[in-house]
Amino acid sequence: MTTATLSEFDQGIALTPHAAEPGRYDAELGAGWQIGGGVNGGLLLAVAGHALAQANGEHRDPLSISGYYLSASRPGPAAVRTETVRRGRTLTTATASLSQDGEERLRVLASYGDLGSLDDEVATSAQPPVMPPPEQCIGVEHAPKQLIEQAALLERFDLRLDPATVGWALGQPSGNGRIQGWFRLADGREPDPLLLLLVADALPPVTFDLGRPGWAPTIELTVHLRARPVPGWLRVSHATRNLAGGYFEEDCEVWDEAGRLVAQSRQLARAPRS
Amino acid sequence: MTTATLSEFDQGIALTPHAAEPGRYDAELGAGWQIGGGVNGGLLLAVAGHALAQANGEHRDPLSISGYYLSASRPGPAAVRTETVRRGRTLTTATASLSQDGEERLRVLASYGDLGSLDDEVATSAQPPVMPPPEQCIGVEHAPKQLIEQAALLERFDLRLDPATVGWALGQPSGNGRIQGWFRLADGREPDPLLLLLVADALPPVTFDLGRPGWAPTIELTVHLRARPVPGWLRVSHATRNLAGGYFEEDCEVWDEAGRLVAQSRQLARAPRS
Repeated sequence: MTTATLSEFDQGIALTPHAAEPGRYDAELGAGWQIGGGVNGGLLLAVAGHALAQANGEHRDPLSISGYYLSASRPGPAAVRTETVRRGRTLTTATASLSQDGEERLRVLASYGDLGSLDDEVATSAQPPVMPPPEQCIGVEHAPKQLIEQAALLERFDLRLDPATVGWALGQPSGNGRIQGWFRLADGREPDPLLLLLVADALPPVTFDLGRPGWAPTIELTVHLRARPVPGWLRVSHATRNLAGGYFEEDCEVWDEAGRLVAQSRQLARAPRS
Repeated sequence: MTTATLSEFDQGIALTPHAAEPGRYDAELGAGWQIGGGVNGGLLLAVAGHALAQANGEHRDPLSISGYYLSASRPGPAAVRTETVRRGRTLTTATASLSQDGEERLRVLASYGDLGSLDDEVATSAQPPVMPPPEQCIGVEHAPKQLIEQAALLERFDLRLDPATVGWALGQPSGNGRIQGWFRLADGREPDPLLLLLVADALPPVTFDLGRPGWAPTIELTVHLRARPVPGWLRVSHATRNLAGGYFEEDCEVWDEAGRLVAQSRQLARAPRS
């Protein structure tokens, strides 16, 4: 398959196995995935997660993946070195290290399995976020120009934010610490487990809704993938409840069109100044 | 200091730096920390977290720590090997590997800093769990005998569960997926950041409250430490909202007596059979 037939996301996470170094995969971080001067952390996690999917054989879905962000990434070449920690019957645990010019950007620890092989039972008590249909939500074309300029990656998303959680874009943050909306890729590429790693860090920082418009560097992001998403829209909610000491947590839920809670994530990030 | 002067917890996480291998610390996993046939996962995280605190110099508090559980631990000797990933100005990121007889039990990735140096601002919107005072809660002396027999570590805790969340002990689980209570160590040792790593996995599995009394092996546990706890009782809540496909998440909050949300954690665990 040539890159001409690949979606933007598949190009973004494309890997070349290194000829001489087993477990190493080379990537090219695209300028189109930038946000606030660096490459989006969710995209980086998807690149590292893709390398682990390649390395882990039949266990190709990240059931749990933790990324620790070490330095700001920039567009250009990157190397991902993977290492198996333990290969079990249902799970393979492994590490990945993403670096650029010898400087490590991201260290990942993850357990992979096969989401298709899981038990059919669904006893979820969580409810999907309530919001108007996509056509009544706010597209990024209405976002403040300053935001768009700093977030090239928004052009690759069809992101429709719930009007109830976009007061911050009009200078009226709700103070609730919640942003939610509908998500799909602009080029129509359907969701799969690796895309969910991007989605977990795709919305504007939830601190915007607390009246803090600056960027919020991620320290750590863990994503639990709980089911393969069906094609279609994803509903995504971000919320924080504990902004203190210069840090905050951001909890994310991703629901698919079948009404399944397909991913849950939490990150610890540095809070922008108020 | 001799072990005779150490609290049970400090004995439990005590380390001896290895004479010949830099970054290695030897530990002895005590039989008193067993639960359901293995050593408690929170205690293991505290042992590995203690080794990282020793290794990381001035950055001695785990701001974010992720543990991936690889095989069941048993009482006896254990080795913890630490390795620095990146040493920055405010954070040091490092890994730890805990093994017994050459078999790896737990792999940890963490970012350490100094909780005492954080910004004073507290803008937490979360509310502490509402429950009766400790003297009106249910001590473990009332727990089913079968539970106590399988959980030696309960004798080291002064754990008082909210009567509203202990119906499961009487055969009447609420189905809400929530267990909460007051926690302190039986020997009076006051809380600190390392103890919070134990507390994050100290309560009975929240699946008990869903009518599933079996043990729930942890796949992954990430703890965010947000402030040093003051002396006294801790309020701890565990909740799950997504039991599906044979797995569930368990979210934990730990509040100190000053009313501060000092730790938030989430784990992914295998669900017991219903």
